[in-house]
Amino acid sequence: VKLVILEPGDVSPSGEAVLCDGRADHLSRVLRVTPGQHVRVGLLNGPRGVGTVIRLAGGTVALHCTFEAQAPPRPRVDLLLAMPRPKVLRRLWPQLAALGTGRIMVTNAERVERHYFDTHILSPECYRPLLVEGLQQSQDTRLPEVSIHRRFKVLVEDELDALCPDGVRLVAHPSASRGEIPARRRTERILLAVGPEGGWNAFELNLLGSHGFCEVGMGRRTLRTDTACIALLSLVLASSDHGMEPDGSE
Amino acid sequence: VKLVILEPGDVSPSGEAVLCDGRADHLSRVLRVTPGQHVRVGLLNGPRGVGTVIRLAGGTVALHCTFEAQAPPRPRVDLLLAMPRPKVLRRLWPQLAALGTGRIMVTNAERVERHYFDTHILSPECYRPLLVEGLQQSQDTRLPEVSIHRRFKVLVEDELDALCPDGVRLVAHPSASRGEIPARRRTERILLAVGPEGGWNAFELNLLGSHGFCEVGMGRRTLRTDTACIALLSLVLASSDHGMEPDGSE
Repeated sequence: VKLVILEPGDVSPSGEAVLCDGRADHLSRVLRVTPGQHVRVGLLNGPRGVGTVIRLAGGTVALHCTFEAQAPPRPRVDLLLAMPRPKVLRRLWPQLAALGTGRIMVTNAERVERHYFDTHILSPECYRPLLVEGLQQSQDTRLPEVSIHRRFKVLVEDELDALCPDGVRLVAHPSASRGEIPARRRTERILLAVGPEGGWNAFELNLLGSHGFCEVGMGRRTLRTDTACIALLSLVLASSDHGMEPDGSE
Repeated sequence: VKLVILEPGDVSPSGEAVLCDGRADHLSRVLRVTPGQHVRVGLLNGPRGVGTVIRLAGGTVALHCTFEAQAPPRPRVDLLLAMPRPKVLRRLWPQLAALGTGRIMVTNAERVERHYFDTHILSPECYRPLLVEGLQQSQDTRLPEVSIHRRFKVLVEDELDALCPDGVRLVAHPSASRGEIPARRRTERILLAVGPEGGWNAFELNLLGSHGFCEVGMGRRTLRTDTACIALLSLVLASSDHGMEPDGSE
């Protein structure tokens, strides 16, 4: 844990937080903090700061926290993700939060098996702690907003413009050639659609195309959904930060 | 399984392969192949091709295989990886093979815990099937060459020039700024060094620097080793294929 994430209700108006759960365990048993020591803290969806250990007693750890003036910016990339195999999604949750994702919309597609949606991995009780784990790793506080959409067509036609009103829309597709992700303005939002391992079908691709999605690819290799997501997100994040600058020095 | 990987010893000179292990199970029970049906096959470190099912009997599947003239090219990126937590490395093996890695050198570093090296995840019996799983996923046949180096200094000073004689050398480091991976010639080999989660120490960074490694970063986020590896490999692979072209159209 690189950052201790505090929920708004954990912190009193005077800045005191008394922890008694896994975070207290981690601080006292793994990090072996002592009174007076500083630890990095972050208020969920709020600013980062510093917690000074003021007491350790009966398994609880009390911190006095001061926070920075500003919360970190909301990540600029949103993800429209065809539901992967549950065990792949379980691995993916913390990594999506760690890389920085503003919104995660999990949706259906023809090549998604129906029983995938019956899994507890889609319940907030299951995915929220995994997202927080990713925030702690990457020292971010912005919890991705998650929504589940069993009807792909309804999502794209009726809901998407309200959820993601502006910015560019990209759809990853195996047959599109690699390296087509153009550099973006720093302020622009990016919505990335990642299909099932078998790819989107023609209807789905057409519907996405007619709602403003441009195809981008990853070369000929078919990757597991989690590998593909991380690879694509990192390409999109890199292009939206600075652009990748060919140095032309050969 | 997108590609059935055959070992050289599996295939007779006339092109017949009789499978009786997990591959036969997968073909007969999951894919439910029938005689006459074609499946995609690949000879380990050799060409891809097509296998025609000629018999199913007693749990075995016999294929007649024809292969393409050329093997796929060896992936151009090599990885020098500080040993991550064993469970992270277990997850990483198939993904490294799927993304395409020519050579994987697992090494020590100050911030690697010593007991990590006592794990069976570093034995070929354990990692080879995981690498093959990645090749089957991405339809590649080039098995990454793996070597384990418990002495970082000996590796960098005495062994690396023989293992990776040419090409560019990049070292990922959290404090380096993001988006510095320059575009590369298509034919040039790239060696990417990825440190432990806590980063390389100053001695290690200096040693890498004095052996030709340029620093590249991933922004301020600290990522789990597997997330960081996939993100960095995909950036390096994208830059070495086409370069990323800022479109400048805003």
